[in-house]
Amino acid sequence: MVTDRPRRLESYVAGVWVRGDKDGVTLCDAATGAPVALVDSTGIDFAAALAYGREKGGPALRRMSLHERAMMLKMLAQALMERKEEFYALSTATGATRPDSWIDIEGGIGTLFSYASKARRELPNSRVLLDGDVEPLSRDGTFSAQHMLTPLQGIAVHINAFNFPCWGMLEKLAPTLIAGMPAIIKPASQTAYLAELLVRRIIETGLLPQGALQLVCGSAGDLLDHAGDQDVVTFTGSSATGRMLKAHPAILKNSVRFTMEADSLNAAVLGLDAAPGTEEFDLFAREVFREMTSKAGQKCTAIRRVIVPRAHCDALVAALGERFARLPLGAPADENVRMGPLASLGQREEVRARIRDLAAEAEIVAGDPTRPQLVSGDAEAGAFLSPVLLYCDRPSAARAVHDIEAFGPVSTVMPYETTDDAIELVRRGKGSLVTSVFTNDPDTAQELVIGMAPFHGRVLIGNRLSAKSSTGHGSPLPGLVHGGPGRAGGGEELGGMRGVKHYMQRTAVQGPPGLISAVMGRWIKGAPGRHESEHPFRKSLAELRTGDQLVTGTRVVTLEDIEHFADFTGDTFYAHMDEEAARANPFFDGRVAHGYLVVSLAAGLFVDPAPGPVLANYGVDGLRFLAPVYPGDALQVRLTCKEISPRMNTEYGEVRWDCCVTNQTGATVAQYDVLTMVAKARGEEK
Amino acid sequence: MVTDRPRRLESYVAGVWVRGDKDGVTLCDAATGAPVALVDSTGIDFAAALAYGREKGGPALRRMSLHERAMMLKMLAQALMERKEEFYALSTATGATRPDSWIDIEGGIGTLFSYASKARRELPNSRVLLDGDVEPLSRDGTFSAQHMLTPLQGIAVHINAFNFPCWGMLEKLAPTLIAGMPAIIKPASQTAYLAELLVRRIIETGLLPQGALQLVCGSAGDLLDHAGDQDVVTFTGSSATGRMLKAHPAILKNSVRFTMEADSLNAAVLGLDAAPGTEEFDLFAREVFREMTSKAGQKCTAIRRVIVPRAHCDALVAALGERFARLPLGAPADENVRMGPLASLGQREEVRARIRDLAAEAEIVAGDPTRPQLVSGDAEAGAFLSPVLLYCDRPSAARAVHDIEAFGPVSTVMPYETTDDAIELVRRGKGSLVTSVFTNDPDTAQELVIGMAPFHGRVLIGNRLSAKSSTGHGSPLPGLVHGGPGRAGGGEELGGMRGVKHYMQRTAVQGPPGLISAVMGRWIKGAPGRHESEHPFRKSLAELRTGDQLVTGTRVVTLEDIEHFADFTGDTFYAHMDEEAARANPFFDGRVAHGYLVVSLAAGLFVDPAPGPVLANYGVDGLRFLAPVYPGDALQVRLTCKEISPRMNTEYGEVRWDCCVTNQTGATVAQYDVLTMVAKARGEEK
Repeated sequence: MVTDRPRRLESYVAGVWVRGDKDGVTLCDAATGAPVALVDSTGIDFAAALAYGREKGGPALRRMSLHERAMMLKMLAQALMERKEEFYALSTATGATRPDSWIDIEGGIGTLFSYASKARRELPNSRVLLDGDVEPLSRDGTFSAQHMLTPLQGIAVHINAFNFPCWGMLEKLAPTLIAGMPAIIKPASQTAYLAELLVRRIIETGLLPQGALQLVCGSAGDLLDHAGDQDVVTFTGSSATGRMLKAHPAILKNSVRFTMEADSLNAAVLGLDAAPGTEEFDLFAREVFREMTSKAGQKCTAIRRVIVPRAHCDALVAALGERFARLPLGAPADENVRMGPLASLGQREEVRARIRDLAAEAEIVAGDPTRPQLVSGDAEAGAFLSPVLLYCDRPSAARAVHDIEAFGPVSTVMPYETTDDAIELVRRGKGSLVTSVFTNDPDTAQELVIGMAPFHGRVLIGNRLSAKSSTGHGSPLPGLVHGGPGRAGGGEELGGMRGVKHYMQRTAVQGPPGLISAVMGRWIKGAPGRHESEHPFRKSLAELRTGDQLVTGTRVVTLEDIEHFADFTGDTFYAHMDEEAARANPFFDGRVAHGYLVVSLAAGLFVDPAPGPVLANYGVDGLRFLAPVYPGDALQVRLTCKEISPRMNTEYGEVRWDCCVTNQTGATVAQYDVLTMVAKARGEEK
Repeated sequence: MVTDRPRRLESYVAGVWVRGDKDGVTLCDAATGAPVALVDSTGIDFAAALAYGREKGGPALRRMSLHERAMMLKMLAQALMERKEEFYALSTATGATRPDSWIDIEGGIGTLFSYASKARRELPNSRVLLDGDVEPLSRDGTFSAQHMLTPLQGIAVHINAFNFPCWGMLEKLAPTLIAGMPAIIKPASQTAYLAELLVRRIIETGLLPQGALQLVCGSAGDLLDHAGDQDVVTFTGSSATGRMLKAHPAILKNSVRFTMEADSLNAAVLGLDAAPGTEEFDLFAREVFREMTSKAGQKCTAIRRVIVPRAHCDALVAALGERFARLPLGAPADENVRMGPLASLGQREEVRARIRDLAAEAEIVAGDPTRPQLVSGDAEAGAFLSPVLLYCDRPSAARAVHDIEAFGPVSTVMPYETTDDAIELVRRGKGSLVTSVFTNDPDTAQELVIGMAPFHGRVLIGNRLSAKSSTGHGSPLPGLVHGGPGRAGGGEELGGMRGVKHYMQRTAVQGPPGLISAVMGRWIKGAPGRHESEHPFRKSLAELRTGDQLVTGTRVVTLEDIEHFADFTGDTFYAHMDEEAARANPFFDGRVAHGYLVVSLAAGLFVDPAPGPVLANYGVDGLRFLAPVYPGDALQVRLTCKEISPRMNTEYGEVRWDCCVTNQTGATVAQYDVLTMVAKARGEEK
């Protein structure tokens, strides 16, 4: 069958593409068995590769701001999207149909886009990230603390699984690069040819700094022996391998951050309310079918355990059986095919062995594991396997069905009696990536989800309302955590900006607020302000400095002001209008000014009216009314420039002001952040 | 010397106090060598102890709300504070002076108080914690996600160090109990008698539910063999033991959360600006002296490496030498004594051996490790050791001084030339709990702190301003993270409410917003609202339900309103006053209403004026002006009850309302949370 000599994959280390010293292992097309590539990493100097990333890639990334890294990711995503057909073409060899490849390729590129836009929306354009609020540590304000996050100064080693060579790489790479850490990718050999092509195209764009991304095709050799105290290692794959890596001497000795995402016996639960005939029943059957057949069931998130009210098991098995009967299984390049082969003949043997294990406790109720029914393709040469549905009648007494994962189109139906039973069955999985619950009953949803939540990184609720919009049980999303406790590996990936922080160190910085401000590049409560003759609203973004401060004149709030404001706005709440009723209120000694009046008058005190660099007030954060304002009180505002975040590709940026409103005794009556858009240059003000 | 037969310590497991089967190991007074207690845990059924905690303690704690757990902690702290003298009396046997014991005993009880008050201030009074904002996942709003945190359903095993038997226990117990997890404490044997007394007093209070707290005095036996997928194990102690535990088969197999806090070569850096004669120089000398002698240097956070500009090394060594000469070393019960003995003769031998290791690269410049100078106590029977200061002239070429910890009153002075050199030396510690920096120069502070932050869990900046208020280099604080990367163990403890989350599972819940709301007990954006004839402000806290919704009438904003508001408040910003200038602004098509006018009018629309259960508006969160409001626009408000948090011990509680202001096209112009205090019963309204 071999026609051409297959291509020898290369690794990208220390800025060059290199081959291993040996020919290496032959990787074959999942559907045809034809050799696709050879993979080997013998002779690669892994210590040098890690050092290159740390010394070259890390500093280059850390010189960029968070938004600059995000823009780099966006441009990278655009460049890859333009080349996607090349990836689709090669992806067929992995056994993936076009919809399967879409998850891998466009799902992966979409994750880059998502991180690029979330980072610019949710993080300031700085190098240091603040974490949480200022912690006051002294009564006199001379000693405080602020937590911050800075990029780890090592390298992230990503050891990936075979099933999603693109997505699996990009979903880890996106948060790593946003955080400012370089990465070295070690794809699973079985599908390394696609990962290699992707990295080749990434490197060709020239968008990443030297050393930010390296690739090892083949064995990881002694790579982990060189893992250091600032490095991160992530692993996706079998729990046996994961455990071995986690106990690696260098990882233990240096407390290397280790994230693992391993086997998981994910479940789907049909609520007691979702009887045959309800939309939820049909949606449930469709979801189980989709999860069994998408990517031929080779997803860490696929549904392995189908937990169904006993009365509805037969109906479900029948519904799934009908769907299986209509499923076109065959060559992934065939457009009519809806399910392709497993990744390799070896994988098929493995899955068949696991089915035999499961069959000791469960009976096969649909599908024949030995004879795939094909619409196209070669049943001998290709790793085809028909979907296999099992039924375990006494799941609470069973072990294998909660413990053994057949990584293919294989699931087991299990009956339950009460919602508590269902929860107990779900928990028998000992920690999963995801479980889904199909119900239209709020109480059932609450009981099931709260009961199983501690065992999961993600729970999906499906019902008729979300039928069309749901992204489905099996899809990790960039904004949601992906990972699970216990046998799922105990790791956490993605989760939006949470994922970025996995590559950063959290540090509490204590000291005098002025010096903390200098460290953070952000004004910290208690730090001195800088007073200049010019109103800070007259300064452009380029001229403003954190700490620039305005102390306004005062304004006395009169009873007429309060009554007038009440009449004008319609807010005639008794605490403003009725002395006696106000006194009866536990918080007030008499009529008080409206909180909204206080902030309105405060703006009147601090706003500089003429056109200037400050373009708009786009919001307010954390407003607290700390003391009542009574008629006769004199308000004064101290406004301090707290954070400056220039936007990329626009002529303005965000400025956050600390706004402290005091009364004539110096007591703070209101405290908040005012958010403004400010032009980068004075010329912008027109 | 033995007078009475020492007491046999007991363990508290499965609700009873039990002794080990054997007499066990004798624990001796650090200063006198007299036997204090015998410790042994032979024969204890650890599997049963873990199961008891999981099955009895866990459910009981989870039935309590977060504030109920916090109140329990507060009462516990009060009860322990009343009994503190008993702890002080026994603490002397550990070698601790009264100030040393204060850190351990009152520092520990203070941590309980701090968690009790922070939890009530920063967390809602619920059982489920929300994490982050709603993630919209569909355009039509029928599919969203919300992350939440629920208590892990296992048990927390806390394996503690000998140096702080009280604080070490309580700083881990506080976040564990707030989270709703039971704990089993395994104190270090050397000082287990004090831990045992503390637990005895805790149990006697009857404040904790059965199974919430257990104690193992003696060896942990096969305890970890039974660690499961919902358990947490924390370890404080030597890195050799820590690594061994981390690689325990059950911990690996079940991905047990493992937090380690181990050896750390903490540094203190004197800034280049802080020459002799400056206040910072004196503060630095004082801090190094204090850290070397407090608790006889037996603190994980003690300063081991003293990094000083080369020109100032002699002056520093001289300053420290003078202080050492005046130091009263002796029996801890002696009130004149400022430093007591090490914990045991064995510890002293260990420290002396490590000093010999260090002396291979550094010379002893103060103190004699062999002959302690005592003002009281028995130099033979007690584990006394004079402070030993070393000097390493070429620290960048040295290894031992960055790698070997002498866990006693021992530090090494190291000269540096440039700030970059100092950072490089600090980093040679490969990850520390804390480093302090003494400088009064903002640039030096920034350069040093940013350069070393990724290698630390905490950094302290000292200068003249914070001299009096600083809590010091060596003190972990409840609100700040405690832990460090690399050789410090890679763990993170405390950090306020961050520490609580270490004992909870984060889960992304996806689905239709209505069902997510049902799960969370909190209204989620996009969920339906409940409309009743009664205004929701008329409902008491007990009657209100999340989802209760008010849709107001409309109010048209006129140009007169805008001009009037400008005149009245003084906020005459051009975008409100000048059509042409407003048009030139990139965000506006003409004159716009003030944001503060919009929220003021919104309040006018939704407020119900008569006295009722709603007592006050105490703040606003996350206000964003999403679209400009032009003259002629008609505002309308949709106000929805989002979160109800009844306070304990008061007649009212917090209610958070989602406030959405729209214009006549249905577009949202402002979005925010309104925070109100609401009476628990209607009677409260008077």
